[in-house]
Amino acid sequence: MISEATMKSALQSYLDYFNAADVDGLAGLFADNATVEDPLGTPAKTGKDEIRAFYTDALKNGAVLSLAAPIRGSHGNAAAMAFDVKLTGLTVRVIDVMTFDAAGKITSMKAYFGPGDFIQG
Amino acid sequence: MISEATMKSALQSYLDYFNAADVDGLAGLFADNATVEDPLGTPAKTGKDEIRAFYTDALKNGAVLSLAAPIRGSHGNAAAMAFDVKLTGLTVRVIDVMTFDAAGKITSMKAYFGPGDFIQG
Repeated sequence: MISEATMKSALQSYLDYFNAADVDGLAGLFADNATVEDPLGTPAKTGKDEIRAFYTDALKNGAVLSLAAPIRGSHGNAAAMAFDVKLTGLTVRVIDVMTFDAAGKITSMKAYFGPGDFIQG
Repeated sequence: MISEATMKSALQSYLDYFNAADVDGLAGLFADNATVEDPLGTPAKTGKDEIRAFYTDALKNGAVLSLAAPIRGSHGNAAAMAFDVKLTGLTVRVIDVMTFDAAGKITSMKAYFGPGDFIQG
C-alpha cells in the first residue's frame, strides 16, 4: 500500500504546483483514469485530458492556495487537507480528499466547499 | 436536497455532543443504516447499535474535539471538517467527511487520520 508520507507529499505538491501555475505538474500527479469532482455535487472530470483542461482553466484566476491546518493521512489509500483559496477580495474555504493507487498517483479527488464557503476578504 | 447550513449545523452538533459525552445526542445524528469508517482504512461500523457502541467506547478516553478550520459544506449532500482531538499529552489531527439523507441525518462518516497524525503535546 502507498505510504502515508507519500500521499501527504503528493497533496503538498498539489498545492505547490497550483501556486506555481504548473499544469503539467498538477496533471502528472493523477492516474490516467482519475476523477476530479470539484466541487462535490457537480459532474466529475474524468481522465487526463479533462483534468488538464480543468486545471488550465482554474489557474487562470490567479488563486493562491494555503493550508488551513496540517495535511491528514489515513489508515487506507487516502489523504485529506483543509485549505483556503485566496482570490482578489475573496477567500474560498475548501477540504480536498484524494485517493491513491499503488504507484502513488491520485485516482480521485473530491473538493468540499459550498456556496456558504465563499468569504469576502 | 438538504441545505448546506443544516449539514454544517449537524457537524457542529457532532463536536458539541462529543465534548458533552452525550452518546444519545451523537447516535441521534445518524440515519438507521449509517456507516462510520473511523479511521478510514478500518472496517466500518454499520447501524445504530454498532455506532452507539463505537461512540460509547470513544467517549471513555476523555478526548476534546476542536475545529482546526471552519466547517466546509459542498454543492451536494456532504460536508467536511478539520479538527484536532486533544487527549492527555497527545493531539490527533483529523478530517471528517459526512454525507446526509434528505431528512438531515448522517448516512456515512469517514475519518481521515493516519499514524503520522498523532502529535505529542
